[in-house]
Amino acid sequence: MMLRQGLHLVRKLYRDGFKLTGLAGRQSLGQAQLPAPQPDRALTVSSWPFSSPPRDYSLPNESWTPEMQRLYDHYSALCEAETEEEKKRGPWRRLPSYNRTLKYATGGRCLSKVLQAKARLFTRNIEEPGASFEYVVFLNKQEKSCVCVFQAGHLLEGPPGHVHGGAIATIIDSVTGTLATYLSGPVMTANLNINYRSPIPLGSVVLVHSALEKVEGRKTSISCRVTSSDGGKLHTDATGLFVSINVGHLFGA
Amino acid sequence: MMLRQGLHLVRKLYRDGFKLTGLAGRQSLGQAQLPAPQPDRALTVSSWPFSSPPRDYSLPNESWTPEMQRLYDHYSALCEAETEEEKKRGPWRRLPSYNRTLKYATGGRCLSKVLQAKARLFTRNIEEPGASFEYVVFLNKQEKSCVCVFQAGHLLEGPPGHVHGGAIATIIDSVTGTLATYLSGPVMTANLNINYRSPIPLGSVVLVHSALEKVEGRKTSISCRVTSSDGGKLHTDATGLFVSINVGHLFGA
Repeated sequence: MMLRQGLHLVRKLYRDGFKLTGLAGRQSLGQAQLPAPQPDRALTVSSWPFSSPPRDYSLPNESWTPEMQRLYDHYSALCEAETEEEKKRGPWRRLPSYNRTLKYATGGRCLSKVLQAKARLFTRNIEEPGASFEYVVFLNKQEKSCVCVFQAGHLLEGPPGHVHGGAIATIIDSVTGTLATYLSGPVMTANLNINYRSPIPLGSVVLVHSALEKVEGRKTSISCRVTSSDGGKLHTDATGLFVSINVGHLFGA
Repeated sequence: MMLRQGLHLVRKLYRDGFKLTGLAGRQSLGQAQLPAPQPDRALTVSSWPFSSPPRDYSLPNESWTPEMQRLYDHYSALCEAETEEEKKRGPWRRLPSYNRTLKYATGGRCLSKVLQAKARLFTRNIEEPGASFEYVVFLNKQEKSCVCVFQAGHLLEGPPGHVHGGAIATIIDSVTGTLATYLSGPVMTANLNINYRSPIPLGSVVLVHSALEKVEGRKTSISCRVTSSDGGKLHTDATGLFVSINVGHLFGA
C-alpha cells in the first residue's frame, strides 16, 4: 500500500514536470550552481522547505588530507575565475553531492521516504568522514569534461592495503554517469569497460578525469582515466556507455 | 615506523611460506572447507589462536528474506550430497566470508592490524545485517564455476529504488575474483567488462553465476551472469580478466 502510494506520487510528480538528475547513482547536479545545458531539462527546485539545508558531502571535512584539500582549492579557484572578455563566470563548476538521489529535487524528500525511507546513495552511505568515499566533482562545461578528486578511505579495501576493484568501478560509474547526465539528461549505465593498470593504495588521493567521447542518438559515451594526484601514474582507464531513459520507466509508469 | 614493521612482518611471513587467498577483495577461500586445487597453494591455517572465532558473514542472519534463505538451503543441500560411486562429498562447497583479506590466514590478524587497523573488506564494511551486501558463494570445483546468492540492501542505491551500477560491479568483481583465485592462486583484476541489461530493484535477491572461460599463462578469464533468483531474467553479464601476481609485490617486496 505504501509502495502503491509512492508510485502514484512519483507518477503524478513526473506528469507535473518533475525533473530528476543524478539518476544512475550520480551526485545531484544541483540547483543554482549548475545551469542545465538544455532548458527543458532544468531542475525546478523551489526554496528549501525544511529547517536545515541538506548536507553537501563534497565540501571539505576534517578527514581530508592536505593533498585532497590542495586539489580542492586548486579547482575551486578555477570555478571563481572570470573570463577575459566579460565579467562572467568561467567554465568550471563544483557539483554538490547528497546522499539520496531523489531527496533534494523538487522537495522530493517525502517522495524518497515513501519509496524507501532508509535507502542511501551507495557512494555516500557511511557518515563517518574519511572512512569510505571522499570525493568532489568539478565540471568544465566548455570542454564537456569533469575531474573528480577522490580520497579512498579504509573501508574500501580489496587487495591488502589497496582499494577494491569494485570501489574503483563505483567511483568511475559515478563520475562518468554524472557527466553523461549533465550532457544528455537522465541516463542509465549500459556498459562499463575498465582496465586496472596499477593498484591504488588505501588512503591515497587520485584524480578521476572524464570526457565526452560521443553522443549517438540515445547513447552517450564517456572516457575515464584514474591517475595519481600529480597525473604522473595511470591507475585505471575505462569507458562508460550510457543510455537516455524515460525516468518513469524506473517506477513502472 | 609502524608501516615499516608491518612490511617487514609481511615479507617475513611471505618468505616463510605464508599463503594468501582472496587477494583482490575476495572472500577468504577458507580452511578445511575448501581443499585447494594445488597442494602448494593450500592454506596453512593453524588452530584459531583467539578466544572467539571470526564472524563468517556468509551465514544466514535475521535480515535474510525467505527467498535468500530458500536459495541458501538449496545450495547448502547440494554441498552435503554424496556421490554415488563412493561415500565422499560431492563437488559443491560453501565458501566462508570474512571482513578482512589477511586477517584470518595463518593467524594474520596481528598482521593486518599493523598494516592498517581500521581497514575492512569493501563488501563487508557495514555491520548492520541486511543494510548493504548480503551474499554467500557456493563453489562447484568439478565444473570450475560458482554461484553467489546476493541480497542487495538499502544502502546500495543508485537509480531511485535500484542498485547502484558500482555495487553490481563490486559483487561481480568479488565473485569472479573468488573463482579466479581458487583456480589460479593469487590474482589481481586486470579488466572488467560489464553490460547492464536490466536494473536490479533494491532489496531483491539475485544469482551471480560465474564460470571459467580459459587460463592462458598468467591470465585467467571468467564469465559472469547476474539473473533473477528464478534464473528467468538477465540483469547483467560480464567478463573478468585476472592476472596472477606475486603477493609480495603488493607490499613492495
